[in-house]
Amino acid sequence: MNTEQLQHLLTALAEGRATVEETMGRLQRFPMDVVLRQGQVVARIDTHRAVRHGFPEVILAQGKRYADLRVVVERALGHGTDLLITRLSGKRRRRLCAEFADLRVAGQSRCVYRQVEERAGIGLVGVLCAGTSDIAVAEEAAWVARLLGARVECFYDAGVAGLHRLLSAGELLRSAQVFVVVAGMEGALPSVVGGLVDKPVIAVPTSVGYGASWQGVSALLGMLNSCAANVTVVNIDNGFGAGYVAGLINRGAAG
Amino acid sequence: MNTEQLQHLLTALAEGRATVEETMGRLQRFPMDVVLRQGQVVARIDTHRAVRHGFPEVILAQGKRYADLRVVVERALGHGTDLLITRLSGKRRRRLCAEFADLRVAGQSRCVYRQVEERAGIGLVGVLCAGTSDIAVAEEAAWVARLLGARVECFYDAGVAGLHRLLSAGELLRSAQVFVVVAGMEGALPSVVGGLVDKPVIAVPTSVGYGASWQGVSALLGMLNSCAANVTVVNIDNGFGAGYVAGLINRGAAG
Amino acid sequence: MNTEQLQHLLTALAEGRATVEETMGRLQRFPMDVVLRQGQVVARIDTHRAVRHGFPEVILAQGKRYADLRVVVERALGHGTDLLITRLSGKRRRRLCAEFADLRVAGQSRCVYRQVEERAGIGLVGVLCAGTSDIAVAEEAAWVARLLGARVECFYDAGVAGLHRLLSAGELLRSAQVFVVVAGMEGALPSVVGGLVDKPVIAVPTSVGYGASWQGVSALLGMLNSCAANVTVVNIDNGFGAGYVAGLINRGAAG
Amino acid sequence: MNTEQLQHLLTALAEGRATVEETMGRLQRFPMDVVLRQGQVVARIDTHRAVRHGFPEVILAQGKRYADLRVVVERALGHGTDLLITRLSGKRRRRLCAEFADLRVAGQSRCVYRQVEERAGIGLVGVLCAGTSDIAVAEEAAWVARLLGARVECFYDAGVAGLHRLLSAGELLRSAQVFVVVAGMEGALPSVVGGLVDKPVIAVPTSVGYGASWQGVSALLGMLNSCAANVTVVNIDNGFGAGYVAGLINRGAAG
Amino acid sequence: MNTEQLQHLLTALAEGRATVEETMGRLQRFPMDVVLRQGQVVARIDTHRAVRHGFPEVILAQGKRYADLRVVVERALGHGTDLLITRLSGKRRRRLCAEFADLRVAGQSRCVYRQVEERAGIGLVGVLCAGTSDIAVAEEAAWVARLLGARVECFYDAGVAGLHRLLSAGELLRSAQVFVVVAGMEGALPSVVGGLVDKPVIAVPTSVGYGASWQGVSALLGMLNSCAANVTVVNIDNGFGAGYVAGLINRGAAG
Amino acid sequence: MNTEQLQHLLTALAEGRATVEETMGRLQRFPMDVVLRQGQVVARIDTHRAVRHGFPEVILAQGKRYADLRVVVERALGHGTDLLITRLSGKRRRRLCAEFADLRVAGQSRCVYRQVEERAGIGLVGVLCAGTSDIAVAEEAAWVARLLGARVECFYDAGVAGLHRLLSAGELLRSAQVFVVVAGMEGALPSVVGGLVDKPVIAVPTSVGYGASWQGVSALLGMLNSCAANVTVVNIDNGFGAGYVAGLINRGAAG
Amino acid sequence: MNTEQLQHLLTALAEGRATVEETMGRLQRFPMDVVLRQGQVVARIDTHRAVRHGFPEVILAQGKRYADLRVVVERALGHGTDLLITRLSGKRRRRLCAEFADLRVAGQSRCVYRQVEERAGIGLVGVLCAGTSDIAVAEEAAWVARLLGARVECFYDAGVAGLHRLLSAGELLRSAQVFVVVAGMEGALPSVVGGLVDKPVIAVPTSVGYGASWQGVSALLGMLNSCAANVTVVNIDNGFGAGYVAGLINRGAAG
Amino acid sequence: MNTEQLQHLLTALAEGRATVEETMGRLQRFPMDVVLRQGQVVARIDTHRAVRHGFPEVILAQGKRYADLRVVVERALGHGTDLLITRLSGKRRRRLCAEFADLRVAGQSRCVYRQVEERAGIGLVGVLCAGTSDIAVAEEAAWVARLLGARVECFYDAGVAGLHRLLSAGELLRSAQVFVVVAGMEGALPSVVGGLVDKPVIAVPTSVGYGASWQGVSALLGMLNSCAANVTVVNIDNGFGAGYVAGLINRGAAG
Repeated sequence: MNTEQLQHLLTALAEGRATVEETMGRLQRFPMDVVLRQGQVVARIDTHRAVRHGFPEVILAQGKRYADLRVVVERALGHGTDLLITRLSGKRRRRLCAEFADLRVAGQSRCVYRQVEERAGIGLVGVLCAGTSDIAVAEEAAWVARLLGARVECFYDAGVAGLHRLLSAGELLRSAQVFVVVAGMEGALPSVVGGLVDKPVIAVPTSVGYGASWQGVSALLGMLNSCAANVTVVNIDNGFGAGYVAGLINRGAAG
Repeated sequence: MNTEQLQHLLTALAEGRATVEETMGRLQRFPMDVVLRQGQVVARIDTHRAVRHGFPEVILAQGKRYADLRVVVERALGHGTDLLITRLSGKRRRRLCAEFADLRVAGQSRCVYRQVEERAGIGLVGVLCAGTSDIAVAEEAAWVARLLGARVECFYDAGVAGLHRLLSAGELLRSAQVFVVVAGMEGALPSVVGGLVDKPVIAVPTSVGYGASWQGVSALLGMLNSCAANVTVVNIDNGFGAGYVAGLINRGAAG
Repeated sequence: MNTEQLQHLLTALAEGRATVEETMGRLQRFPMDVVLRQGQVVARIDTHRAVRHGFPEVILAQGKRYADLRVVVERALGHGTDLLITRLSGKRRRRLCAEFADLRVAGQSRCVYRQVEERAGIGLVGVLCAGTSDIAVAEEAAWVARLLGARVECFYDAGVAGLHRLLSAGELLRSAQVFVVVAGMEGALPSVVGGLVDKPVIAVPTSVGYGASWQGVSALLGMLNSCAANVTVVNIDNGFGAGYVAGLINRGAAG
Repeated sequence: MNTEQLQHLLTALAEGRATVEETMGRLQRFPMDVVLRQGQVVARIDTHRAVRHGFPEVILAQGKRYADLRVVVERALGHGTDLLITRLSGKRRRRLCAEFADLRVAGQSRCVYRQVEERAGIGLVGVLCAGTSDIAVAEEAAWVARLLGARVECFYDAGVAGLHRLLSAGELLRSAQVFVVVAGMEGALPSVVGGLVDKPVIAVPTSVGYGASWQGVSALLGMLNSCAANVTVVNIDNGFGAGYVAGLINRGAAG
Repeated sequence: MNTEQLQHLLTALAEGRATVEETMGRLQRFPMDVVLRQGQVVARIDTHRAVRHGFPEVILAQGKRYADLRVVVERALGHGTDLLITRLSGKRRRRLCAEFADLRVAGQSRCVYRQVEERAGIGLVGVLCAGTSDIAVAEEAAWVARLLGARVECFYDAGVAGLHRLLSAGELLRSAQVFVVVAGMEGALPSVVGGLVDKPVIAVPTSVGYGASWQGVSALLGMLNSCAANVTVVNIDNGFGAGYVAGLINRGAAG
Repeated sequence: MNTEQLQHLLTALAEGRATVEETMGRLQRFPMDVVLRQGQVVARIDTHRAVRHGFPEVILAQGKRYADLRVVVERALGHGTDLLITRLSGKRRRRLCAEFADLRVAGQSRCVYRQVEERAGIGLVGVLCAGTSDIAVAEEAAWVARLLGARVECFYDAGVAGLHRLLSAGELLRSAQVFVVVAGMEGALPSVVGGLVDKPVIAVPTSVGYGASWQGVSALLGMLNSCAANVTVVNIDNGFGAGYVAGLINRGAAG
Repeated sequence: MNTEQLQHLLTALAEGRATVEETMGRLQRFPMDVVLRQGQVVARIDTHRAVRHGFPEVILAQGKRYADLRVVVERALGHGTDLLITRLSGKRRRRLCAEFADLRVAGQSRCVYRQVEERAGIGLVGVLCAGTSDIAVAEEAAWVARLLGARVECFYDAGVAGLHRLLSAGELLRSAQVFVVVAGMEGALPSVVGGLVDKPVIAVPTSVGYGASWQGVSALLGMLNSCAANVTVVNIDNGFGAGYVAGLINRGAAG
Repeated sequence: MNTEQLQHLLTALAEGRATVEETMGRLQRFPMDVVLRQGQVVARIDTHRAVRHGFPEVILAQGKRYADLRVVVERALGHGTDLLITRLSGKRRRRLCAEFADLRVAGQSRCVYRQVEERAGIGLVGVLCAGTSDIAVAEEAAWVARLLGARVECFYDAGVAGLHRLLSAGELLRSAQVFVVVAGMEGALPSVVGGLVDKPVIAVPTSVGYGASWQGVSALLGMLNSCAANVTVVNIDNGFGAGYVAGLINRGAAG
């Protein structure tokens, strides 16, 4: 809840339009839809952002039993807003889409989504990745940005040991408002892209690699130490966060 | 050099307006001003960005001998563009300002700068920090953003163990286009700010702390694992990078 | 064995009421009930604390084969004291409860327990957690504190990126004698709670998270570096230890 | 600020006894005394706790310039409450005591303090340490607990490789409400003390050691993995935090 | 091959009793029995030590396929010396004993062995461990020492949080020539034992624990930083190495 | 693409023999053969090196589904060049060889290969390893070097705790142009070999070991800190990279 | 205090020859000589071992102020037993020897010592080190072993990259009862020595090196993962501990 | 000593041309020149390689007192071979050159050298570095390679965030036999160079950077995880080792 809304609540209270108890209640119940199954809490959907235009509801499927997940999805679909469900296995993706006709598979990401009304994306978000193993994370970023209203273009398999591949992405590098760059192993691609563009670059390390890559540590450190000044970093494999921030930046620049 | 410029070079070559040798030469010499002292290279100033409107030249003073630094600053001032010199000790700040009348001390940061013409900042960048020891890093971010054309407001000493302090920053939290949030120790402030706003938050871990803070590792991990989706992270103590990206985002949103 | 008991033994020996051999024997056998299966030791139940009023016997099920566990539980139930069995899978919880009618499932924790006589808890222990994935660890703490005689109230899913949720826990924050605060990822909740209360806060990092959370390292470091002075920390996922210490503190304050 | 105070503010607003502006102002200014020197903020003293009975003001001297520290101390002494200044070098301890007659050196800790009125401590806090190099940290804990109103007894140099030393502390082990146990190197003393007592034990790892002690990592890990259930842990060398929590627990138990 | 044997070879060559080729051959073939299965090398048994009195052959079963292991064991049994096979699952222990009548299960360790002739052990090796989960590693040490000719006595489940248990091991602590002390979690037991005896103590950290024990790191660091001067350390879970060195020391002292 | 080829492209453009569009196209399509299955990219084979004499195409099988792998192999075999497929399980090795008659199993490595025409290797690459568990990685290096045209000799199971074994490899140590030395655990073999030869030694740490070997960290650090000046290091288990570089060095020396 | 002495105390108490108070007192005062300076404890000398034949008193100088150290040394010299003072700078070594005529510099170690009566050492301890930078640590081990009664022979600068040097130490390798092997960087020497001898090898990692040696981590890990079964390890730079254990083993074997 | 020399020794012994004692002596004294000062060993110069054509003697100055260094240098100059002294401060460089007229400063490295006779280098070694702070390490590599007989060309300040700089090094990238690539921070340059050339690339991480670069860890991991197959790695800041191996490879290819 932001300060503006707090001020409204306080003003209503000050002007006698609300009681102390009502005000306390509003603070407590408003931005949360609690979902129960067999009498126990299985999720608290944050409706805080979703009720405003252009923000989807998001459900992290990882770590939820299917029975719980099913109940949560059903409830969320009832809210009538855009919806994104992340980190699903192939089997659970298929099962959810079979049960709920509104859901669509989001490309090669591990997500499904429901978009209430088709609309043309605005601005442009560029999503690049270094190897074919990084595609699932990159796609997660791309689809999150799309649900935040962005037009998104992707360019995959652009590892730094074959720089000629990047040259063919010249148009994309020239026109996007913000970039998401995904890489495992040594994580050098964001530095190279950062040196070629004048826009923010959000770097996503992935757990791709072996030996001394230590499940993404190597890529993470490479990105934090980037010699390009326009690079910021998110957690390992956090395509969702990168796409979310890219969507916010793109909305600011193109809105 | 971006793809557009490359295409211009190739077209000139294709149309006979330039030779292969000239083209190779352009690729080689253009975006770099090499500074020598006593016949040895002491810096290669990247004029690539600085020649375009609104980007300052930046000199990292750390690790340079004063004699070398002095030559580089003199040359950079001759380019006639905005200039920022970062990571200076108090002694070197005073010495540089005494030698070059154009330079100004940048608040409580460890930087000095030259701004060719005063101009009102556009948009709004919010810079917050958790403790008084984090101020130097926060100020570095603030001044970089200012030189990129942003209006900047700062709110310092807002640690999460005293949340009532954040409430008084309500106006700032409501109106900025992007936030830089600086914190050492457990690094929790960006998560709290991220939960209160709908704009991008750039988190800067600092090396402030003792014991198991390990010179910023604790703050860095806390920020990478933030439960707020709108947080990205830069390297420990990297106020410069955070201010740079914040300036880019603000320019996109307010330009 | 504490010093008081040692002094009793020595005095009995000094006054001729006991022999050296008897004294040595007492030192050796007293506080330990050795359980055998097929001639091999499967557990040594520490009866040291359990024989005194208000301390339950505790059995850590993790790492024990079911056949061994079954024998140990049977023996422990025979001691006639309160009993807690921790870290059980759902399957083993059901199997134990089917075999031993005295055992009850302890809420959403992974524990079962036997309480010899119902009694109203004294004082108040507040147990909070940041996300739904932290509930199992929080419940373990809650039930350990209950068996140590405390009244316990829980408030779950109070992550720092949605601070408005904490406001509704005002009554609990005002009245408890001690708090257990459980969190994964960046582990910031104990700092925020610590800043709101004047009572001890016991922080429990959990292994919840992904990427650079490294199975709880991030949360652990965040809590050790807390800027709130009233926070102490236990091992990752150690709900048992946190509940135990909270029970001791509550007993001291309310006893 | 706690929930009770928030409710008072809201009620005053609801009953027309305060305006929205006044309420916002109270939230902003109340618990903070801002200290300036030469027009720049040098400290914000948290008067939040100090104004209530029995809590001292605390100033962390480490990282402050003496000129700044001097101004802050002067201001704090003017508040008329108990005061503790931590992490001072020997030279600065002497200098402060020479300038301010009210200040006293706090034993072998690196602190000085002012106590407004002598009062007998209540309850009992036991402070133990493993080696002579750990004494400064142990003393910091002891003096913080004293300023929180506790009676404190210390027992130093009780390393686990000479267990006979611990036997002579039998009376202390039997009668204290809570223990602070300080150790470097392998950090085993808290486990041993924890096994001998039925009260909470707060473990403080120190940076004492060499080689694979890595400035306290070894002791910290040893304490987090303690096999005694009544042990909680604070940051490396954080005698202040341990003494603070011990004082809170002792106050609860003896108050 | 040691220097004495090298000198014999050189002398034979010098006196014409051997050719250069023969000497090279001796160097190459002597201390190694190569075992093949289906034309590929599956093991090279080091017969170097085993041919001398009192050293068993040792086969590390971990990582070998059963078919390969079976061939190696058959060959080794043919050498007619004592034999120890380590790190076997329960299933493979039973299968090997069923196939080879000479093999015996070595207590609660994961080993089987063949001892050519029963002989009374000499000297005394004391093997202690902290918890019941450490027993398998402790037993591995005990049986290795026995096969090196030692008399061995074991005392298990002597954790430092219940020191009274150690008192009943007084006779063992007083009479052994060398101790193997096994512990997981905080790894404090070797320090305590080391302070009670005047003989070498070989500490074995185990991977027992959870959370910040990091599969034995915590115990390993605790032991390396032991404040007792008579403690040396081996790798995590390396009961074999500890028993081997203890056997050597015992043989030196009792031989 | 190297500079020479770039210059050819530019010259063709300058002389009117190519258009800008053609040149951009060449840059984009040339060195990459994109393989699709069911309309989605499953691999981009880098034909850049393979088209030149003596470099095989290489396919990393790890992480690919069999259906995808099968399509990629089929396509690659169609290129008519040498081919190497690495990191295959035994089951997939057999399945591939059954489907494609041209493929051969590469010794004890986890690779299969196709060599278009038999040719005698040139020069000499020596491949050594410390234990039998390191053989798979060593063989991968050996077969990569063979496909790069080298004659390769292997010497396995030469651990530093039995130095007499190395003596029998005297001829190999004297005559190879370059060495690949593979070791797990303490990783000391490359230092010993490095001290015996005057040629480059490429050290490969393996993940063989337990406890504080941490999946190859111990061996990796040992090799990076080698006291022999002629040792360089590759990633843990990276037999492919070591064999590749050894093949390049051997080609330079023997070509 | 060992169990035998405890039994004597208990028997005296049981037979009326001692009171409870006397017994408690004996437990408390016996093995400790407390040294004060200006009314504060500066050291507690452990006389426990030193009063028995053949064990020196040991004072760790590191971290003590000279004034304190001087008082402690004076007191210790008064006990009339052998004395060793470790970890002294060159300046403090000279100063102590100037003040106390009985003290002698212990070779190239950083120690001084007093030996009450010259006696021929018994048995043989072999001390080896890998490089000249490791000599100070090796000498510390050698002199500790000498004061424990051992004959000691040293062989320095025997790094594994020049194995021919080790051959000249054949006589020492053949005849010592126990070895101390000191090495920095990759720490491989103990494995090589361990493979050549049938006696215990105590490995001492040193902080010698740079880069990825991380102040001895690399050597420590190498030694813990040694493939030789007769190697145990002490803390980084802990020459004292290695010499102490070697002295104990040698005494057992040669006594 | 290599196997060939060993065989010569053995043959001489076999043919009666040498005695066993002589042979032992040769093994012991041959490849080592021991330097004493005031009766203590200050260095053992390895003459093993230096006596053969084209290998310089190398003295590591770091960690040596100047008086010792001076004696060693004097002795080494007397051997009449090429000489390299590494890791000297500016002050010691000047002092050595003043005392010994034969010594020359080696460019911007921290080395001095003596070359007995000028000779044209053979082949070509390319040395590149990413930033101006990496130049000292790069120059160390360059001068070592020169003393091993190589022609060396350098190209500095070619960071990956400004790829256009690399284009101007096209001739060097096309013609060198082997590359040394030096970089700090994210260490990405070797991957990029590795993708552009078909020759071996030796990557040198440097300790340049701040924050999460951890004195070269970030660059080291980036290089170990390089996606280019022709990259091998040496220790952090180990310009010497990289230049040494590059010199060996170049000699093999060009000799």
